[in-house]
Parts: sequence; C-alpha cells; structure tokens
Amino acid sequence: ARPRVGYFYTGKSGTQLLTENLMKLYVRDFQAVPVVVKEQSTVYEAIVTMFLEDVGTLFVVDDSVCLSGVLSRKDLLRASIGQQDLNTLPVNVIMTRMPNIAVCEKDDLLIDVAKNLLERQIDCVPVIKKTAKGFEVTGRVTKTTISRAFVSLTDDDH
Amino acid sequence: ARPRVGYFYTGKSGTQLLTENLMKLYVRDFQAVPVVVKEQSTVYEAIVTMFLEDVGTLFVVDDSVCLSGVLSRKDLLRASIGQQDLNTLPVNVIMTRMPNIAVCEKDDLLIDVAKNLLERQIDCVPVIKKTAKGFEVTGRVTKTTISRAFVSLTDDDH
Repeated sequence: ARPRVGYFYTGKSGTQLLTENLMKLYVRDFQAVPVVVKEQSTVYEAIVTMFLEDVGTLFVVDDSVCLSGVLSRKDLLRASIGQQDLNTLPVNVIMTRMPNIAVCEKDDLLIDVAKNLLERQIDCVPVIKKTAKGFEVTGRVTKTTISRAFVSLTDDDH
Repeated sequence: ARPRVGYFYTGKSGTQLLTENLMKLYVRDFQAVPVVVKEQSTVYEAIVTMFLEDVGTLFVVDDSVCLSGVLSRKDLLRASIGQQDLNTLPVNVIMTRMPNIAVCEKDDLLIDVAKNLLERQIDCVPVIKKTAKGFEVTGRVTKTTISRAFVSLTDDDH
C-alpha cells in the first residue's frame, strides 16, 4: 500500500493542545527569589526593604526561619497612613498570619497557582518546602510570574 | 478514490496553535474599569480612593478629563513615608506624567501589552482613546488582567 506521508491524525483540538502545553508549566521553572524579613522588624524597615529589593510582597519568618506571615504593599500602605510610629511598630502586628496564607510548592502547576491568586485576590504566594519546624520559604510566585509564563507561551521552546 | 476520512493535515505544531490562540486575545475583551482622580486631589485622597476601589493603580486626569498621570501603590507608599503632609500634597507632584506613561488601545493584542508591562516593569497600563483634547481613559490592563487571560486559555471557548 502507498504510505500516507504528510498526513497525521492527532484527534486533538486547539484547546486540548493548549491545555497540554499549560500542563507543562511548573512553579519550579518560573518562580522568583523570595525576600524575607524577621518578625521583630519594624514596619519602617519592611518598607525600606520592599523598595530596596523592588518587590511587592515580603515574607515574614520566625526564629527558625520558617514562614509566619506575609506583608503586601497594601498592608504597608495602610499602616503608613495610620497613627502609629512606623519606626517602632513591629511587622507581626500588621502581617497576614499563618494559617491564613496561601502557599504553593515547586512541583505545583503554574495554572493552579494562577487560579488561586485570582480567587483569593492576592498578588503573590510563597513557594514553600515542608520541614519539621514549619514551612521553609524557597521562592515566590506573583502575577508578574504568571504574566511571564503567559508571554513565554509564544516562545519556540514550548 | 476512497475518501481519507478521519485524517487531516494541519501542518501546525502545538506552538503554532498556541500562538494562534494568543493572537485572538484582545484588550477589549479582558480590560478592567479604570479608576481616576483629579490632578488637584491630595495624596491622602488618592490613598483612600485606592483602598475604597481596591485597585493598585490610579489614573490622574486634567480638567478636560484627559490622562495626565499615573499613581501606583509604590508611588503612594513612597510619599507616605516622606516628610510631607499627605493632606495638602497634591497628586500631581508625585505622579508619573505624560508623555512617560505607557498606554494601550482596546484593539491591541493582550500579549503585546503583557510584554510591555514586563519590559517596563510596571503593573498597569491605561486603555486610552485618542481625542482632540488628549487621551480619554476607557479601561485598564493590569497583571491581574494578564493572569485572567492565562487562566482563560484552558476554558473551552478558545
């Protein structure tokens, strides 16, 4: 029989191919470096750190260097128009605390983290590693990370 | 001749299909509502508006209601830890001004706006309409918008 060269049957729609490509995008390949401050830091120190490191979210760690809180630009802005002295106010008074923090792990799919960010209306989640003492912070996924992944879909290596 | 049913040749790779799908995503279908303040507003009023409207970026308009500036959460946070009185400081002192503002239009591709946000390291661009008096602000595209588009790629209607 004559071979049918040049023909192939994928049985897949564009959406299926698209979904398959999205299912190859993992947190570990896109995550950014986390920026952390200690629980004892002041709000003023946190704001300075946020500007120096140019990030929108800081993670707060306890004495075991495990995740205890999250500080967004919004939290810091709210505190800065309050009546308290930013130089003495510790970050653990204004931070979002465990267990109310959404986290992800490096082997999670980026699409799932993106859905979580949108559902919870937050800008960033820490990438964590579970240890006996708590969650070690190993990275961060932000809406910038998601935007980078979106743009990467048109690259040739996918 | 026997019809070759069940076979089709697309000649397209997964990436090409992906890119084609991305080329169907326009600003007009994903843009959010813009939140604006007047040039005469104080920084304190702008911060309150940002919290009330729950947005990360405000657009500043002149007396013709045309775009004259942009205020990010970062701009407001910087101002709030400064030495000036937020109740008297007008936003036009701290805003990013035209022509240094990246803009987009409703018929632009979302992927191009995403690239622009990443390149310029900004969180948001206004969607504008050119008029004789200047740029009318009709929407906004943020990294949240881009994240929404990313998630929408797995929906069945693409």
